[in-house]
Amino acid sequence: MINTDLLIIGAGPTGLFAVFEAGLLKIKCHIIDALPQPGGQLAELYPKKPIFDIPGYPSVLAGELVDNLMEQIKQFEPGFTLAETATTLNKLEDGTFEVITNKGTVHRAKAVAIAGGLGTFEPRKPLIDNIADYEEKGVEYFVKNPEHFRDKNIVIAGGGDSALDWSIFLSNVAKSVTLIHRRNEFRGALDSVEKVQELKNAGKINLITPAEVIGLKGDGHIEAITVDKEGEIYDLATDYFIPLFGLTPKLGDIANWGLEIEKNAIVVNNALDYQTNIEGVYAIGDVNTYPGKLKLILCGFHEATLMCQSVYNRMNPGRKYVLKYTTVSGVDGFDGTRKEAEKAVVKKID
Amino acid sequence: MINTDLLIIGAGPTGLFAVFEAGLLKIKCHIIDALPQPGGQLAELYPKKPIFDIPGYPSVLAGELVDNLMEQIKQFEPGFTLAETATTLNKLEDGTFEVITNKGTVHRAKAVAIAGGLGTFEPRKPLIDNIADYEEKGVEYFVKNPEHFRDKNIVIAGGGDSALDWSIFLSNVAKSVTLIHRRNEFRGALDSVEKVQELKNAGKINLITPAEVIGLKGDGHIEAITVDKEGEIYDLATDYFIPLFGLTPKLGDIANWGLEIEKNAIVVNNALDYQTNIEGVYAIGDVNTYPGKLKLILCGFHEATLMCQSVYNRMNPGRKYVLKYTTVSGVDGFDGTRKEAEKAVVKKID
Ligand SMILES: Cc1cc2nc3c(=O)[nH]c(=O)nc-3n(C[C@H](O)[C@H](O)[C@H](O)COP(=O)(O)OP(=O)(O)OC[C@H]3O[C@@H](n4cnc5c(N)ncnc54)[C@H](O)[C@@H]3O)c2cc1C
Ligand SMILES: Cc1cc2nc3c(=O)[nH]c(=O)nc-3n(C[C@H](O)[C@H](O)[C@H](O)COP(=O)(O)OP(=O)(O)OC[C@H]3O[C@@H](n4cnc5c(N)ncnc54)[C@H](O)[C@@H]3O)c2cc1C
Repeated sequence: MINTDLLIIGAGPTGLFAVFEAGLLKIKCHIIDALPQPGGQLAELYPKKPIFDIPGYPSVLAGELVDNLMEQIKQFEPGFTLAETATTLNKLEDGTFEVITNKGTVHRAKAVAIAGGLGTFEPRKPLIDNIADYEEKGVEYFVKNPEHFRDKNIVIAGGGDSALDWSIFLSNVAKSVTLIHRRNEFRGALDSVEKVQELKNAGKINLITPAEVIGLKGDGHIEAITVDKEGEIYDLATDYFIPLFGLTPKLGDIANWGLEIEKNAIVVNNALDYQTNIEGVYAIGDVNTYPGKLKLILCGFHEATLMCQSVYNRMNPGRKYVLKYTTVSGVDGFDGTRKEAEKAVVKKID
Repeated sequence: MINTDLLIIGAGPTGLFAVFEAGLLKIKCHIIDALPQPGGQLAELYPKKPIFDIPGYPSVLAGELVDNLMEQIKQFEPGFTLAETATTLNKLEDGTFEVITNKGTVHRAKAVAIAGGLGTFEPRKPLIDNIADYEEKGVEYFVKNPEHFRDKNIVIAGGGDSALDWSIFLSNVAKSVTLIHRRNEFRGALDSVEKVQELKNAGKINLITPAEVIGLKGDGHIEAITVDKEGEIYDLATDYFIPLFGLTPKLGDIANWGLEIEKNAIVVNNALDYQTNIEGVYAIGDVNTYPGKLKLILCGFHEATLMCQSVYNRMNPGRKYVLKYTTVSGVDGFDGTRKEAEKAVVKKID
C-alpha cells in the first residue's frame, strides 16, 4: 500500500506542477497515470511540436516542457504509479482517501487531486474479430517499454506519427520491424517520413502497403498475422502486433465516483480552490469545468497552485500559511537539496 | 491621443503576458507604466535574482523572464507609454474609456486592464530640506535614461544594489561618478560590491564613506551638494544628485477611480473574468484581490488569459470564440509574421 499526503491522478503538466507547489508547502505527493510515461497529452500526443503560449517561452517543444517540469519537481521526490488506471475512489471514515488501480495497487492519501485531463487514452482498435483474445498476449496498443520488444519480430500498423516514430525507434531494438498501412502515403513530420523511407531502403524496416491486417493467429500468444495486400491474402509470422491507429480520451471510471460531471468534466469551485463536490477531492487542469474555463496548460498551473493552498489548510487546520517567494526563501527539497538566490553580502569598500 | 482596443496599466509580467493572450484574439494593446522600462517588480527590484516557481523553469532570472516575455509578445506590437503614471480614468458615454497620465497623455480604449502590481514605486527620499526644489532639476530618484548623464558629473547616494549597480554602469557614461554612503559597508551582490571596489581602486568611482548629503545648492538647477563626512562639512560640485534609498509601492491615484478596494488591492470577480465593479475595467496580477488570492507571477498569467476572453466577448458581442491551441493553429502576429508547428506532410514511402 502506498501512503502519501496528496495523491494526484494524472501526470500531465498540471499534475506534475502540482507536485512542485505542494512541495513548497511540505506536502508529499504520489502520482498515478495510466500511461507508461509522465507528460499527459504533451508526451503522448505531440511531444515534438512547439507550444507558443507557455508564459515566458516564445516557443517550447511539448516534450521539452515535460522534461523541464520533471526537473523542476525532482527535489520533491514524487512517487509514481505508471501504466495503471485509477478505477476506484473511497472516502474513508477518518476523512482520508483510498484510490485503487486496475492492477489492484492501493493508495492512501489525505487529499486527492484529479488532474486527469481529457481522461485515459483509449486506443482506436482495428476491426479484427478475435483481437480481444490476444490483448496483452502479443497485441499491444501502446509501447510501454521498448525493451519488451528487444530481439522480437514485431508488426506495427498505422499511417501517422506514432506508427512512423515507433517503427524508427524499434528498428534499433527489435529483431525485425514490419510496418503495414492501408495507403502508400503516410501522414506525419517530414523528418519521420524520410527516416522511414531511409530505413526501408536499408532493409531495416519491412514495408507492406497498401495493406491491412485482417486476422490474428496463435496458440495462447500471437504467432502470425493475416495480411490482405490488395486482395492477396497471406500469413506473416510475428511475436507482436502493435496497431497504432490513434487514441481517444475517455473520462472512464472517474465519471462514477460521485463527482458532479458536466460536459465530460468535473465541476469545481473556481471561486476558491478548485475543490469538487466531495470535500478533499480537487480537480485541476483539463479535467475540470467552471464558468469561463479554458483548457490550457497555463490555467492548470494556476489551478494547481491555489489547490495546494487549500490542501495545506486541510492538512494544517488553524495554521496560517504566509506566502513565501521562492526568490527570497529558496526551495528546500525533500531530498535535502536547497536552491536559493545568491545571498547579498555586507562588505566594506575601502 | 493614443487609441487602442485594450489599455493595460502596468508593464509587469502580468500586463506583458496579457498582450500575448489579447493578440491571439486579435485585440490590440497599449501599455502605460510609470517606470522607464517594462518588467514591473522583476525589472525594478530583482532583475538578477532567480525565480524557481515559474512553471517549466527550474530556475530563471527575473530579468531573463522579462526579456522572454517581451520576445513572446513582440509580434503583437504593443504600444508603450513609459515613465508616465496613469492618474485619471473616465468611462465615456459610449462605454469606452479614457485614461490620462501625469504628463497629460490621453489614451482611449474599449477596455482597461489594471495590472498595476503593488502600485507605482515611490522613492524613499533623503531628508534634505530643499530637495523638492531640485526635483527634475538635477535630483533624480530613478535612472530613466542613462544617456541623460553622459559626460556629466554625478553623485549617487545609497548603500544597496541599486546604488552599486548604477555607479558601476554610469562610471562608463558619466564624466565622474561619486558614491556616497553613510556606512563603510555596502549590502548587495558580492559581484557588485567587488566591482565597485575595483572601479574605486582604478579611480573611476570616487567613494565618500561614511558620509551623508545634507544640503543642495544651485541656481535653478543643482550645482553642488553639501557633504557631512563624520563632522567634516564641505561642498562638492555636481550636475546631478541621484539618491537611491529604495522604493515603496503605492497604489496611488488608482485608489480614487471608484473601484472597490480591499487590503490595498482591487476586488474582482474571480469566479468569472477578473472584472472589477466597473464593467469593462479588469484588474489582474498582484493588484487584485479575491478569496484565496496569491500574489504570484504564474497566477497573473492565468488571470490575464481569462480576462482577455471577457474583453473579446465585450468587443465581439454574440460572436462565439472557439479556443484554438497555438500548437495547432499557430500564432499570427500583427506585424505579418507567423509562428507555427511544422506541418505534417502526406508522403508516399516506396
Ligand atoms: C495537439 C494538441 C495541441 C495542443 N496545444 C496546446 C497549446 O498550444 N497550448 C496549450 O495551453 N494547450 C495545448 N493543448 C492542450 C494541452 O495539452 C492540455 O491543456 C494539457 O495537456 C492539459 O494538461 P493536464 O495535466 O490537465 O491533462 P493531460 O495532459 O490530459 O494529462 C492527464 C493525464 O491523466 C491521465 N489519466 C486520466 N485519467 C486517469 C485515471 N483514471 N487513472 C490514471 N491516469 C489517468 C492520462 O493518462 C493523462 O496522462 C494541446 C493539445 C493537443 C492535443
Ligand atoms: C524580491 C521579490 C521576490 C519575488 N519572488 C517571486 C517569486 O519567486 N515567484 C513569484 O511568483 N513572485 C515573486 N515575487 C512577486 C512578483 O514579483 C509579483 O507577483 C509580480 O511582479 C506581479 O506582477 P504584476 O505584473 O501583477 O505587477 P508588477 O510586477 O508589480 O508590475 C506592476 C507595474 O505597474 C506599474 N504601475 C502601477 N500603477 C501604475 C499607474 N497608476 N500608472 C502607470 N504604471 C503603474 C508599476 O510601475 C509596475 O511596473 C517577488 C517579488 C519581490 C519583490
